Amino acid sequence: MEKSNTDALLENNRLYAGGQATHRPGHPGMQPIQPSRRVAVVACMDARLDVEDLLGLQTGEAHIIRNAGGVINEDAIRCLIISHHLLNTHEIILVHHTRCGMLAFTDDLLRAGLEGDAAAEKLIGQATGRAFVSAGKASASPAAFQAFRGPPEPLDAPRSDASTERIAADVRRGLSIILNHPWLPTAGPDAITVRGFIYDVDTGRLEEVSYPGPMGGFG
Amino acid sequence: MEKSNTDALLENNRLYAGGQATHRPGHPGMQPIQPSRRVAVVACMDARLDVEDLLGLQTGEAHIIRNAGGVINEDAIRCLIISHHLLNTHEIILVHHTRCGMLAFTDDLLRAGLEGDAAAEKLIGQATGRAFVSAGKASASPAAFQAFRGPPEPLDAPRSDASTERIAADVRRGLSIILNHPWLPTAGPDAITVRGFIYDVDTGRLEEVSYPGPMGGFG
Amino acid sequence: MEKSNTDALLENNRLYAGGQATHRPGHPGMQPIQPSRRVAVVACMDARLDVEDLLGLQTGEAHIIRNAGGVINEDAIRCLIISHHLLNTHEIILVHHTRCGMLAFTDDLLRAGLEGDAAAEKLIGQATGRAFVSAGKASASPAAFQAFRGPPEPLDAPRSDASTERIAADVRRGLSIILNHPWLPTAGPDAITVRGFIYDVDTGRLEEVSYPGPMGGFG
Amino acid sequence: MEKSNTDALLENNRLYAGGQATHRPGHPGMQPIQPSRRVAVVACMDARLDVEDLLGLQTGEAHIIRNAGGVINEDAIRCLIISHHLLNTHEIILVHHTRCGMLAFTDDLLRAGLEGDAAAEKLIGQATGRAFVSAGKASASPAAFQAFRGPPEPLDAPRSDASTERIAADVRRGLSIILNHPWLPTAGPDAITVRGFIYDVDTGRLEEVSYPGPMGGFG
Repeated sequence: MEKSNTDALLENNRLYAGGQATHRPGHPGMQPIQPSRRVAVVACMDARLDVEDLLGLQTGEAHIIRNAGGVINEDAIRCLIISHHLLNTHEIILVHHTRCGMLAFTDDLLRAGLEGDAAAEKLIGQATGRAFVSAGKASASPAAFQAFRGPPEPLDAPRSDASTERIAADVRRGLSIILNHPWLPTAGPDAITVRGFIYDVDTGRLEEVSYPGPMGGFG
Repeated sequence: MEKSNTDALLENNRLYAGGQATHRPGHPGMQPIQPSRRVAVVACMDARLDVEDLLGLQTGEAHIIRNAGGVINEDAIRCLIISHHLLNTHEIILVHHTRCGMLAFTDDLLRAGLEGDAAAEKLIGQATGRAFVSAGKASASPAAFQAFRGPPEPLDAPRSDASTERIAADVRRGLSIILNHPWLPTAGPDAITVRGFIYDVDTGRLEEVSYPGPMGGFG
Repeated sequence: MEKSNTDALLENNRLYAGGQATHRPGHPGMQPIQPSRRVAVVACMDARLDVEDLLGLQTGEAHIIRNAGGVINEDAIRCLIISHHLLNTHEIILVHHTRCGMLAFTDDLLRAGLEGDAAAEKLIGQATGRAFVSAGKASASPAAFQAFRGPPEPLDAPRSDASTERIAADVRRGLSIILNHPWLPTAGPDAITVRGFIYDVDTGRLEEVSYPGPMGGFG
Repeated sequence: MEKSNTDALLENNRLYAGGQATHRPGHPGMQPIQPSRRVAVVACMDARLDVEDLLGLQTGEAHIIRNAGGVINEDAIRCLIISHHLLNTHEIILVHHTRCGMLAFTDDLLRAGLEGDAAAEKLIGQATGRAFVSAGKASASPAAFQAFRGPPEPLDAPRSDASTERIAADVRRGLSIILNHPWLPTAGPDAITVRGFIYDVDTGRLEEVSYPGPMGGFG
């Protein structure tokens, strides 16, 4: 069976984690708009991820979608619909990662802090180690910050089984959202495929997340 | 006056466009979560942009936020609030680009096509050069595809004054949205700064967009 | 076959349009939280619609969800999920109406006017007959104003075949969105049902919209 | 000083709570699209609220916007912008209420239940007294259910100081969101005004919520 692009990129990642970068950082000259590997990656915005480097992608090969947490929210779906239906990608790769900031706060905490709740302001300052300055007012948007479910842990805490499962649950939610959205085909000639991974920022390695599986509770 | 990070990265871009890549693609080992240059970049997902390469960023220096068009929508604001208030960035760089796919369709066209409108399906197929397959049903989400305002042009059309102004108008909208959001401070010690650019995918060069200025009509 | 609540309320509407109001406007005293008719109505916010009056509903019988246009967007879905899964409703009624304001503008026109585009400001002032004052700045939210598709007509224009079809298309989009949302069951013991109507503000009469059918083009 | 419409409607409410309904439920014949009192009300969808009755509004006088909780989210802002800028309203009234369903669950609980988390399914069934049926899949939309902040209480529990403060905090958030949105003017000739109230479903009485004041913590 012909190897998928995802499998090919996973091999690049093993080289990357082993110290052998395969990404070529120069400007490639003129290229067509359609990603040549027909791949779209959704990853976290975290500065320690260079998606093209860790997957050994060359410029022009894949759409790179990145947001806080690499979550599959309304905007990620917007991007994937445009990527597939207009620009012909069909393999989707989700990349969350260890030590993610989305493990270290709750939506209500950040929202209350921005609104001016003194206890929240103080806690955010302690958790982030910076002088948090509240806006002292409310906003309807963003409707959710999409912090990962479960009890917050210290910012940038080393990897643990508990945090890995919280991250994996969010990857699985992302997979389920993509596979059940009315505008992303999962059967027939136009079908997309999607797989999810956790990137270890310390080692550079990608690990696949099993699916289906637990998508997180409500603690 | 001390040079801003944005100015330093613009110099890297000149080298990049001149054929001299300064980004180092290897895994950098362990790094702290806070971006070391305190920079957050919002750019388009287009495969022809490698943001770290074109800005000469090293892994660990900046948050990289990417979506279809590099538009400043609810999710980009979500990411920038987390980037600033929790992870200490304060310089924001917006990067749109020439030949962008967001110039080549309208929200209503894509939506009608996905819903099953035959004329829309046919037009999307012709515009994209691929076999567009409609979902034949409606969806409330995404609420908007955020195609750039103005009459659509052929997909991947070469740069023109008209398309450059449509792109610049969207960059200015993004700047205005960031500078007027209740939760992003623009004065005082915690203030953020933001500048917008158009990246020429053919030459590799960044050009700054003047602000304030026209943010687009309603044609 | 036992008459559905929707059919019973349609009969009330015939009386209402005939000048015989059946809604009792007094405070009913204490009632349980679950709507006694297990009905949820989604209607436009237009001042000429009193939903309880035109359907002959008594206080405590139905959830009343109202927004600009009575559109089925992310928030209407939020409300319907809470209404069904937590508060036990299962019959959904959509009510659009003639002379609707959502026929008289486009998203881009209102957005450009609020951002400070002079031509848009002028046109909005003429179309609404009031002194439109621009905010002179952009906002990411709301992501869409959800004006009905098709060429705008004068505000409050008398009913026409063209406007009735534009309204019916939006009703059908709403029906399709509800019937295809992953979190609203349409089969099995927990299934919801949904029917859509156009209310004639001049005569007080409801007319059912056929479904499936055209959901609007992209002109 | 000329009495505001809001004050006049509060007097109608005293009559309503005293058993004297002033709303006339018949079809009023043809009316202009602009609300004659230039008022827009945002209230909860709860079946025990008939907004026109409890405020003694006549058909044609006010825009009625209703959603789960009467919260000021992106859609409520969409409606208020259209109501003010296109249809000339300028007095906004927020109406939350006692025994509200939004006091009785958390976003994560409902989301986890819909996704198929067994513990969440069981708890929702117990809390609502109905056979909750999970969708067994995730959805990106709605991004938030906007349950009120704070520890959930039993569904439809009698009014308490704790629940009243949770409701008041959400009213104040709504006021702050409206007063700080870039597209809703609060100064100059085009300014809007807004006041918030809690409606007691048992007595029919409205009580004003003081503003500014606490907007809720993050417990």
